[in-house]
Amino acid sequence: MENIFKLPYEVVYYDTDVKKRMTLERLVAVCVLVSEEQSTFVGRDAAYLAPLNLGWVITQYEMDFVRMPILGEKLEFLTQATSWNKYFCYRNFWVKDAKGEVIIEMSATFVLMDLTERKLKSVPENIIAPFGGYKENKIKRSPKLPALNATDFLPYRVRYFDLDSNQHVNNSHYFSWMLDALGADFLNAHEVKKVTIRFDKEVAYGQEVQSYVEILDDGSTLHEIKEGPDLFANAQVWWQDRA
Amino acid sequence: MENIFKLPYEVVYYDTDVKKRMTLERLVAVCVLVSEEQSTFVGRDAAYLAPLNLGWVITQYEMDFVRMPILGEKLEFLTQATSWNKYFCYRNFWVKDAKGEVIIEMSATFVLMDLTERKLKSVPENIIAPFGGYKENKIKRSPKLPALNATDFLPYRVRYFDLDSNQHVNNSHYFSWMLDALGADFLNAHEVKKVTIRFDKEVAYGQEVQSYVEILDDGSTLHEIKEGPDLFANAQVWWQDRA
Repeated sequence: MENIFKLPYEVVYYDTDVKKRMTLERLVAVCVLVSEEQSTFVGRDAAYLAPLNLGWVITQYEMDFVRMPILGEKLEFLTQATSWNKYFCYRNFWVKDAKGEVIIEMSATFVLMDLTERKLKSVPENIIAPFGGYKENKIKRSPKLPALNATDFLPYRVRYFDLDSNQHVNNSHYFSWMLDALGADFLNAHEVKKVTIRFDKEVAYGQEVQSYVEILDDGSTLHEIKEGPDLFANAQVWWQDRA
Repeated sequence: MENIFKLPYEVVYYDTDVKKRMTLERLVAVCVLVSEEQSTFVGRDAAYLAPLNLGWVITQYEMDFVRMPILGEKLEFLTQATSWNKYFCYRNFWVKDAKGEVIIEMSATFVLMDLTERKLKSVPENIIAPFGGYKENKIKRSPKLPALNATDFLPYRVRYFDLDSNQHVNNSHYFSWMLDALGADFLNAHEVKKVTIRFDKEVAYGQEVQSYVEILDDGSTLHEIKEGPDLFANAQVWWQDRA
C-alpha cells in the first residue's frame, strides 16, 4: 500500500501502568508522534503550518484492540492518510507486534484550526495532498453514543503541563481523565477492547472539568468530560477481561 | 571514563510545554530510562530484582541546568554509577546537546526497597558491583532546605495512571505537582536553573496531597508535597529568566 509511514517503538516503563500494559494516553501520544513524523517527511510539519497560523486538531477516534501492548514489547506503528473533504481529513493507524500481527487498529479525524481564532478552517489542497489519499465529498458520520445518565464524576483541573506547544490541551490527556474515573478495581480487572471518542470543544488552562462515567448493562462504559452543562468530549469504551 | 552508559534521545512534542521546552517531568523520566537500560545492559534489571522482591527507589536529586532542551533537539543522556555504601547508591546523569556541550548535570541517590514491606534494604554487593563505581562508608549529606512558611497550596489527587509497575507513584510526577502550583505566568517567564529535591515517603493511589509553594526573596522557590502534617517530598528550585 502507498503512503504508509512506519515508526518502530519499544514500550518502556513510562508508557505502562501497574499491570505493565501500555496506557491509552501513551498509545495515542505515540500515534500522534508517528503522524507528526510523516508530516515532517512530506514537508508539511508544524513549521510549514506556523506562518499560516494553522495547526492540526483531532476530533475523533475509533479504536479496536486485540490486546494492549506490554512493557518491553517492540512494536511498529503505521499510519496512512486515507481521504479528505472540505473540512475533515481521515487517517488510519495500526500497531503491529514483533510477530507482525496487527494488535490495534484506529481511525482518526483531523481538522485544521486557526491557532488564534481557534476556529475550523477548510483544508487547502497544497497542505493535504502530499500525504497521499484522495479527495471525496463524503463525510464520515461518527457512531452516535447513548446518552449518559450518571451523576457520578471526578474533577480534573487542567494543569500547566497538560498544554502543548499549540497552547492546546493534548487530546491524549482526556483518556486518562475518562478512565481514571473508573477506579483501580475496574481498571486492574479489565482491558480496553474498543473505543469511540469525540472531542467537541477545547478545554483551557485552569479550567476544572468533570469526568462523568456510567457502566452500561452490556459492560461497556460511557464517558463525558464536561464543565457544568458544556460538553468537551464524550466516549464509549468496550472492555475485555484482563488476559 | 569507565562504566558510562549513553542513550541518544530526541525531544518530541509530548516531552515539551507551551514554550516548546522539555518538562522536568519528562527529563527525569528519560534519565530513569537510561539508568534502566544500563541495568539491563549489566544484567541487573527489574527481572533480576523481582525474585528478591526488591526495587530501586530514588530518594534525592541535585540538578544544575545551563538550559532546558527544546523541541526537536537531538540529545545524548549519559549516566554513571559512582559509589555506594550500606544503604545508598549514588549515580550521576548528564545531558549533552548536539554540539556535545553538557547542558544539564544531575546527581541522584538510589535505595533498594522491599516491594512488599516498602522498607529500605541494605544493598548486596552482587546487585550493585556490576555497575562499576566503588564502595565507601561515606554518606553524602543532602543540602538542608529552608523551612517553608506558606499556607498556599493546590491539591493533587494521585491517579491510577500515576502508578508504575512497582505499584509506586513515579517520582517524576512530583515535579509536575510542585511546578504546576506556581501557575502559568511564573512558568512562562522562568526556566529552571538548579533543583534540590528529596523524596521522604511514598504517596499512594487515591491520596490527595497538597502542593505548597513559597517564593523566597532571592527568587528561588520552596516546595512541599504534604498530606495534612505528613511530608512526602520537598524541594528548592532556583530560576533563570527565560532565554
